[in-house]
Amino acid sequence: MKIAIDAMGGDFAPGEIVRGAVEAANAYPVEIVLVGRQEAIEPLLRRGGYREEAISIVHAPEVIGMDEHPVNAIKEKKAASIVVATELVRDGKAQAVVSAGSTGAAMASALLRLGRIRGVERPAIGSPFPTLKGVSLLTDAGANADCRPGHLVQFAQMGSVYAERVWGMPGPSVGLLNIGEEAAKGNELTQEVYGRLLGSGLNFIGNVEGRDVPAGKAQVVVCDGFVGNVVLKLAEGLAGALFAMMKEEFQAGLAAILLPGLRKIKRRMDYTEYGGAPLLGVNGVAIISHGSSNAKAIRNAIRVAKEAVEKDVVGTIARVLHEKSQGKEEGKEDEK
Amino acid sequence: MKIAIDAMGGDFAPGEIVRGAVEAANAYPVEIVLVGRQEAIEPLLRRGGYREEAISIVHAPEVIGMDEHPVNAIKEKKAASIVVATELVRDGKAQAVVSAGSTGAAMASALLRLGRIRGVERPAIGSPFPTLKGVSLLTDAGANADCRPGHLVQFAQMGSVYAERVWGMPGPSVGLLNIGEEAAKGNELTQEVYGRLLGSGLNFIGNVEGRDVPAGKAQVVVCDGFVGNVVLKLAEGLAGALFAMMKEEFQAGLAAILLPGLRKIKRRMDYTEYGGAPLLGVNGVAIISHGSSNAKAIRNAIRVAKEAVEKDVVGTIARVLHEKSQGKEEGKEDEK
Repeated sequence: MKIAIDAMGGDFAPGEIVRGAVEAANAYPVEIVLVGRQEAIEPLLRRGGYREEAISIVHAPEVIGMDEHPVNAIKEKKAASIVVATELVRDGKAQAVVSAGSTGAAMASALLRLGRIRGVERPAIGSPFPTLKGVSLLTDAGANADCRPGHLVQFAQMGSVYAERVWGMPGPSVGLLNIGEEAAKGNELTQEVYGRLLGSGLNFIGNVEGRDVPAGKAQVVVCDGFVGNVVLKLAEGLAGALFAMMKEEFQAGLAAILLPGLRKIKRRMDYTEYGGAPLLGVNGVAIISHGSSNAKAIRNAIRVAKEAVEKDVVGTIARVLHEKSQGKEEGKEDEK
Repeated sequence: MKIAIDAMGGDFAPGEIVRGAVEAANAYPVEIVLVGRQEAIEPLLRRGGYREEAISIVHAPEVIGMDEHPVNAIKEKKAASIVVATELVRDGKAQAVVSAGSTGAAMASALLRLGRIRGVERPAIGSPFPTLKGVSLLTDAGANADCRPGHLVQFAQMGSVYAERVWGMPGPSVGLLNIGEEAAKGNELTQEVYGRLLGSGLNFIGNVEGRDVPAGKAQVVVCDGFVGNVVLKLAEGLAGALFAMMKEEFQAGLAAILLPGLRKIKRRMDYTEYGGAPLLGVNGVAIISHGSSNAKAIRNAIRVAKEAVEKDVVGTIARVLHEKSQGKEEGKEDEK
């Protein structure tokens, strides 16, 4: 299996990206294609320490920055690393793409180069969210700021496939992120989605509130991309604020004693541990890693990409959505 | 100044509510009217220890539960403690009402009994949100699940008045909660609101993202009530999850050493310290305290209610909104 890595994407690219790719090539039975500026990548590989046949470079001279408009950048920079890496998947030269660069650019590349899985209205970002019980999948984590009810139902379907296939959670529980437990609670969007999820055949456990997300009440948490993005960034900011307060409140001596425990907590809170966020609904495996990814995060993202390929997440989503649309057709005929 | 307290509202009512009211009566130059079941309140007051002329009871035999439909409950239970307490404000027998009961019932009582300030389209909940820099006001924190752009602009105006008057923050910075820093980011709602806030005359500092909220980037954070409610409950849940993880990771001996520092952090994170959430835009001072309020939280809520009365938050909101609408009229004339 070949996995294409955007070697130029991320705060610590290309150094940490290449290092993570080397670690992954040593840890898993995968071949890595590093996509980016050859002259930047080659020196990083010179120290060796890996199976040479497992890593190759595809030169891509351009880079898309974090602050560029994704769709415009994709159109203008046809030789950008994320574009070229995604094209390797489109052309069957790689089975998955991993990037720690601009999420928007990765999504735009995937949409424009791979397209959507048939039947998918809006691809979504599925983000791992660490909880007291392990991890949940938050989807949509930011791809679609304005959503219609049908979109959220598909997010739930795609997220369930991912959690079941890649994380091994059979029939994962699905919660609708809302502002109250009762069916009638929420805004127009969630009120409508609630009824549709009830009839979706998914393991829908009802509404979950903000406080239920870190508690791990649902394995798949469904929301529109605006809310999902706010949730994800708030959680990041709040964890950071709490650790900052600890530094202020505990003297240096005490902080040293605490460090091992705090590190464990940080690791539990750290979603890079869970190996990046899948773009759900695009016609190929595309995994986004956090912008501040270090080598370990990249290695984990590559592991997740490998599993998504092996477990055929894309084919399964296509099949599930096809069955749902068939079911609808039959339902319509029944009504006649 | 008289302040009416819903003695029956909250997880620890009436015990903690009465205790908090007694503390407030001893600490501040206010008179307290405890509204609720006389037979439940009287025994709690028997132990004395307060200025007797400062505390009186108004009997209200009914109670609205946390799970009742707010508007229906208000209409059916005309003798409910929150309804009677709010009517004291309407009738000029008290200058403010404080409740730790159902937020929905408090909002419905305020809307139906006090009405809106002239010019206010939608009253909102302003919730204190603890940050690394102190505290911000998050508004709307849950009253309006679906909002139009004009609503958010008014939330910003009302929130600014509150932060300036009650918290003494001159020209408080206003941030629009969004999913990116640039003006073009966001959903249809926030994209429209951005431009309107630019021209609002407020100290608008632009978009703030989820991670900027706990960092304290803006003193007033504006969002629709769906997002605000999710943010508030997520923050609560996440802080709880982090403390739970600490208990798991640190041995008992270490935990004892940590306790004083952790308590300080908990206190910094604890929004009951900031004295409850004002209902902004209703025609009277109404303060909601957390459902799990203890005596201290109630005392703080009473202090805040007193300050909102003294600083004439209601009159100031009315004046500011009137000036804005005058400005608009003049603007329209200019256009002709």
